Amino acid sequence: MEIILKKYSQSQIAMAKHIKAIVFDVDGVLTNGGIIYTNSGDELKIFNVRDGQIIKHLKRNDIILGAITGRTSALVARRCQELDLDFFYQDVKDKFAVYEEVIKKYELEEVQVAYIGDDIIDLKPLKYCGLGIAPADAPEYVKTYADVVTDARGGEGVLREAADFILASQGLLRGVIENYLNENI
Amino acid sequence: MEIILKKYSQSQIAMAKHIKAIVFDVDGVLTNGGIIYTNSGDELKIFNVRDGQIIKHLKRNDIILGAITGRTSALVARRCQELDLDFFYQDVKDKFAVYEEVIKKYELEEVQVAYIGDDIIDLKPLKYCGLGIAPADAPEYVKTYADVVTDARGGEGVLREAADFILASQGLLRGVIENYLNENI
Amino acid sequence: MEIILKKYSQSQIAMAKHIKAIVFDVDGVLTNGGIIYTNSGDELKIFNVRDGQIIKHLKRNDIILGAITGRTSALVARRCQELDLDFFYQDVKDKFAVYEEVIKKYELEEVQVAYIGDDIIDLKPLKYCGLGIAPADAPEYVKTYADVVTDARGGEGVLREAADFILASQGLLRGVIENYLNENI
Amino acid sequence: MEIILKKYSQSQIAMAKHIKAIVFDVDGVLTNGGIIYTNSGDELKIFNVRDGQIIKHLKRNDIILGAITGRTSALVARRCQELDLDFFYQDVKDKFAVYEEVIKKYELEEVQVAYIGDDIIDLKPLKYCGLGIAPADAPEYVKTYADVVTDARGGEGVLREAADFILASQGLLRGVIENYLNENI
Repeated sequence: MEIILKKYSQSQIAMAKHIKAIVFDVDGVLTNGGIIYTNSGDELKIFNVRDGQIIKHLKRNDIILGAITGRTSALVARRCQELDLDFFYQDVKDKFAVYEEVIKKYELEEVQVAYIGDDIIDLKPLKYCGLGIAPADAPEYVKTYADVVTDARGGEGVLREAADFILASQGLLRGVIENYLNENI
Repeated sequence: MEIILKKYSQSQIAMAKHIKAIVFDVDGVLTNGGIIYTNSGDELKIFNVRDGQIIKHLKRNDIILGAITGRTSALVARRCQELDLDFFYQDVKDKFAVYEEVIKKYELEEVQVAYIGDDIIDLKPLKYCGLGIAPADAPEYVKTYADVVTDARGGEGVLREAADFILASQGLLRGVIENYLNENI
Repeated sequence: MEIILKKYSQSQIAMAKHIKAIVFDVDGVLTNGGIIYTNSGDELKIFNVRDGQIIKHLKRNDIILGAITGRTSALVARRCQELDLDFFYQDVKDKFAVYEEVIKKYELEEVQVAYIGDDIIDLKPLKYCGLGIAPADAPEYVKTYADVVTDARGGEGVLREAADFILASQGLLRGVIENYLNENI
Repeated sequence: MEIILKKYSQSQIAMAKHIKAIVFDVDGVLTNGGIIYTNSGDELKIFNVRDGQIIKHLKRNDIILGAITGRTSALVARRCQELDLDFFYQDVKDKFAVYEEVIKKYELEEVQVAYIGDDIIDLKPLKYCGLGIAPADAPEYVKTYADVVTDARGGEGVLREAADFILASQGLLRGVIENYLNENI
């Protein structure tokens, strides 16, 4: 899917070709970082429908998907279940340790893992994974550790933009689109 | 209404002149794609008042209006009822099939239907309808299948911008405005 | 307050000098136009704290303040009460008729009234009032009927920007600021 | 952390070197100024996860942190408790008086206090503190009283950007980052 790949460098595309798993942070990636409280004690989060639309296509292409978050939230769990992720860890203090567990469990190499994160707690996986991705609105010094910075800000479809890029790099996005045009949905 | 039409090409205006129905997706078109959950299990969506303000004028000019969405939601149903749409389909897996049903039911030709959508599930109706419209923040490869990309992002009045364009192309927007100025509301 | 007035023309400032009342729409002016529903049947609106911060200073300077809205909502009523407006009309079909009522009731002339609105229902008061103001994100053809377009989009402090402009034009903003710096709050 | 400091002047960095306390407003700083009401009488506020991520690092470096707000809200109290602030004052009419109380209580000098605010009620502390900081979307005339205007708008991580700047100016941000890279979290 050439139109998608135009904005990426050859070295970014080369990294994306190896990816077999996408691991991501939740707040600031699937959301815009909004911590929304109500006076009556409830909490809300705002996800984006576009992140979800690509997931079945990632899974059909055997790309493993999972979230690691430092916070704990029933509604994040609900969204992750809806997204049909392969794994979902919350209340994580050391993200790199969990990231390494995941690599082991799925028998992956580091070059096969894309990691999406937006903050200091994400720096180590961003640095050591095969394709580090940060949202447009991450702090500048976090973005220096990423291989790709998305056009999308957190909550605007960061996972989707990353997924489209990875599928396109692997020559798979064209097939996804043609299936929709041919109604083989 | 010349000021409105300035940004459109002659071929876009020619397409808009034929439109007798506007069919649209909900998430990412009437909303910014936000999937908003609460910890207590509720769900929210954010629509835009400007989309609603033009609807009675579309209907007075016999333009058919309806939504097709892949998700199911009581609050989308509530908004669609408030908008007084001619039809509303939810939980749709194959949007093009429903789109074809609608064409048949209302005895329309494809050139008479505008379709607004923002994602891969919208690609086929966007491609085959008479005027395909995508919001500014749709993925780039979705926008390549649209005839018009709105200045508005999803939830910022995409339907309104499309409706204003269609009414103006058909020479009807001037009358709407003059009615307000002359208090024939 | 020169820094504020720099971006306005002499004719805009001349109009602002006469203003004794600010009348405004709610959805799309005090809010970004968001119609927010919950699945359980509740509704939300997002106002901006900055609109409220200037109101007591307008009132101390005898500027009359009021809202006219076409919709009906307990939460809009709550916000308008909190803002301590002089009047608040909801469920209004003909805004110009109410606008004329207000002019009569407060013994104003049209050149003394600023009107802030963002949609076709606001066109007539925007055109005939003494200072028509539209938010940055109003439709283009609505903005052509306004004397001033704010930098703020709806919900980002449109009323505040209008109020600051009017106070500054009348030489009153400097006094507001000095009171804060001298703790005569 | 050079990349962070590039956008600041020498005089701004010199001011930031002295800072031992950060005092901030809530609405318009930790939030985008949104006053969110529900029809059923509830209230919401939207904070940003990024503001919270830096706080333990400020505290480890003995920087005192606290909020002063003119409004009263259980949910602001909840967020401030979660942020583990050293102090939190609400329902404050005269912010400068409280600001002076804080200086006395913690035995600080004015040059050691950074103050973040976005409105007229913040003008006096902004002017007299050691480092006045305003969000990008504060009114222009408020920004003229600030020493630093953040790139972030209210609710987009204004406190975080200010904290990163102060830590970097004091040569401490590098250590924070290296701790994450070395897993000494």
